[in-house]
Amino acid sequence: MQTKILLDESRIPTHWYNIIPDMPGSLAPVINPRTLQPVTPDDLLPIFPMAIIEQEVSGERWIPIPDEVREIYRLWRPSPLYRARRLEQALGTPAKIYYKYEGVSPAGSHKPNSAIPQAFYNKQAGIRRLATETGAGQWGSSLALACSMFGLECTVYMVKVSCTQKPYRKSMMQLWGANVIPSPSEFTNAGRSILAHDPDSNGSLGIAISEAVEDAASRADTNYALGSVLNHVCLHQTVIGQEAKEQLALAGDYPDVVIACCGGGSNFAGTAFPFLADRAAGKNVRCLAVEPASCPTLTKGVYAFDYGDTAKMAPIAMMYTLGHDFMPPGIHAGGLRYHGESPLVSQLHHAGLIEAKSYRQTACFEAAHLFARSEGIVPAPESSHAVRAAIDEAVIAKEEGKEKTILFCLSGHGQLDMGAYDAYLSGGLEDFEYPEEMIRESLARLPKVDL
Amino acid sequence: MQTKILLDESRIPTHWYNIIPDMPGSLAPVINPRTLQPVTPDDLLPIFPMAIIEQEVSGERWIPIPDEVREIYRLWRPSPLYRARRLEQALGTPAKIYYKYEGVSPAGSHKPNSAIPQAFYNKQAGIRRLATETGAGQWGSSLALACSMFGLECTVYMVKVSCTQKPYRKSMMQLWGANVIPSPSEFTNAGRSILAHDPDSNGSLGIAISEAVEDAASRADTNYALGSVLNHVCLHQTVIGQEAKEQLALAGDYPDVVIACCGGGSNFAGTAFPFLADRAAGKNVRCLAVEPASCPTLTKGVYAFDYGDTAKMAPIAMMYTLGHDFMPPGIHAGGLRYHGESPLVSQLHHAGLIEAKSYRQTACFEAAHLFARSEGIVPAPESSHAVRAAIDEAVIAKEEGKEKTILFCLSGHGQLDMGAYDAYLSGGLEDFEYPEEMIRESLARLPKVDL
Repeated sequence: MQTKILLDESRIPTHWYNIIPDMPGSLAPVINPRTLQPVTPDDLLPIFPMAIIEQEVSGERWIPIPDEVREIYRLWRPSPLYRARRLEQALGTPAKIYYKYEGVSPAGSHKPNSAIPQAFYNKQAGIRRLATETGAGQWGSSLALACSMFGLECTVYMVKVSCTQKPYRKSMMQLWGANVIPSPSEFTNAGRSILAHDPDSNGSLGIAISEAVEDAASRADTNYALGSVLNHVCLHQTVIGQEAKEQLALAGDYPDVVIACCGGGSNFAGTAFPFLADRAAGKNVRCLAVEPASCPTLTKGVYAFDYGDTAKMAPIAMMYTLGHDFMPPGIHAGGLRYHGESPLVSQLHHAGLIEAKSYRQTACFEAAHLFARSEGIVPAPESSHAVRAAIDEAVIAKEEGKEKTILFCLSGHGQLDMGAYDAYLSGGLEDFEYPEEMIRESLARLPKVDL
Repeated sequence: MQTKILLDESRIPTHWYNIIPDMPGSLAPVINPRTLQPVTPDDLLPIFPMAIIEQEVSGERWIPIPDEVREIYRLWRPSPLYRARRLEQALGTPAKIYYKYEGVSPAGSHKPNSAIPQAFYNKQAGIRRLATETGAGQWGSSLALACSMFGLECTVYMVKVSCTQKPYRKSMMQLWGANVIPSPSEFTNAGRSILAHDPDSNGSLGIAISEAVEDAASRADTNYALGSVLNHVCLHQTVIGQEAKEQLALAGDYPDVVIACCGGGSNFAGTAFPFLADRAAGKNVRCLAVEPASCPTLTKGVYAFDYGDTAKMAPIAMMYTLGHDFMPPGIHAGGLRYHGESPLVSQLHHAGLIEAKSYRQTACFEAAHLFARSEGIVPAPESSHAVRAAIDEAVIAKEEGKEKTILFCLSGHGQLDMGAYDAYLSGGLEDFEYPEEMIRESLARLPKVDL
């Protein structure tokens, strides 16, 4: 009985699927935080190449993937689709569980799917250097890899406390040639102003974003790259769902439910959007976004205009948010600690077209533990949220005595996150309650956008 | 142009290739260290199941792989064969460079290829628990994974200093359910006697082997498992070379030279033996074993009977050795720090049928750095020795203006070895001279075997 469903390199998708023309209603405008008016391409040109800006708002359903990008995708794509037979046995479920494994990329997660085209389009636009931020390090290492492939310089503002907690991620970025700067730094006004008030600041993702954007905006040879949230990032990730559909078809199957973890939303978007496209053809697939109970953007946030960052320098978008100054507790799935959410994913959720669910981290690590002991692979803490939800769907199928086909995205491996597993194994994980009071206070400070 | 050559799961080899019937001359006996007489199966039964003992001495050329083992191999096998096109471009070489990538296993190296069958045969023999040792942690984590798959208990004596230096490896073993004991420990006579003299001992692989063997020998429900050196381990690893041959054939190619790093020898054996088998059919393939200059067993050792361990408790074998009490410097490729060598690999080298070469570690990390920046994957420090030799072969081809097909085994990824890369990037790597004086002293203490 087959375990992995592989595709030949010739089956790497030739186009990304752009969900914008299939959205329920038109997109809300993105707002310039200074003018409180809709952002124009000119507002974005100091930090993004035109090709990316065009993708951000494109109405084309299928956007060709450049040959130069597909050439590098070949290093790990198409990624394998697994049938989790040993996990099914362990659960005694009649459900079929499939997982699309994105941890096979050199950086160990799905992030290079977007880092590679972003580096490519910037190189093509004559840009010499990219600046970005990273928290846990998955995005920073992916962009470092991508810049290495296209001969671009790369500067990564890494949240200072992460430099200490995730030294291996920092080393990977440096090996791929990136300049890693602990944030807050002395290199930007944003960094200096923080350090003036708090010389020992541990940093935050919001501060690091401000530093990277300022760096890019102030240098003509430098652009900025973001690893999630934006439309073009969701677009690039759709190689995941497209491949999974073809692999499931080879297995003679189609999912009843598609599951992915959801922080900024690009991994969920990449997995689910190509399946959502099938709804027009009458396919009735559920799509489930899974988030941490400590940062429950879709499940407890509001759908409103809010700033993309804490410092109110990033554009304002219509999205589910916990408030731009909501500071999520330091859970181990660092990639899911974001106050906002992809506007596309948000709009779909608001329209009732996708589902969302949240879990506490202990429940997620328990699921990841069972997964590692049955399937071998150690899931990234972020991905463990999808594992938890998939197991729960399979258990429901067992209780109901129903067949069911479950697909989830195992977006990365956790070999560089073993410190989190140590905390779990030693019983030292804290299950943060989501601080309803604090969220409410943050929501009181939403920007007033009046169009 | 194709980058990866993939095989379907149906192409997982059905048999292991046993080189014993094709060896040049008969095998030297393995000697019992207490009696100085040849080891009998009865000597080995307290620590190994009969199926493994039979494989150790089998004259059958092809040994069937049990279905239960192939079922678990499916989780990552067949492993991909890559054409290193971007590395070729970086070198400007006319040579074609292929690499077989074993880092796709859940443990990140080739070691599970033998851990899985060893756990299986022990389970089948009614054994409840396995004991082993680990230095850098690759073997310990692989056996922990294998025991998890077959429901066996697993105790790993981990060199104490490695527990601190490689905490993530320890955590992986624990996640897969193993009991990890820092060695020397209070649980064995061997450990207690060391601690009595040196309560702060950092431990060594030799001590950890002694503890694991004592543990296994003293409990009826427990056996011992070794991750390299022995004939059955080399046998299990031949899935690597068999798959690579089939993948190269799909690409219409055959190697002029096959390269693998060599510590205990199982990764080299698994890669090269299936190609050596083609010599009878007139194929003229070179096989090159690459070792560290600081532990140059094949290139500077002698071919003689020597103990397998420092404590003289393990059997005596005819092999290349630097002397059983030779203590190699603490280089970063911990998996290559062994005074001896697989008797099969040793005999082939002594007969002039394979080549050996040694490199200092800085040269290996430089090669790994270039590899990571062109191919993306971060090599394990051990595997970087093969990368170095492959690059040098490609450079020679360039200088000579000759076409050449190079195959090497990338035996594992280095994502858990970033501390070593940090040392390299900061210029802090020490290039140990191999201490000729110390080797000579160690060689003066070889056992006197007179048969």
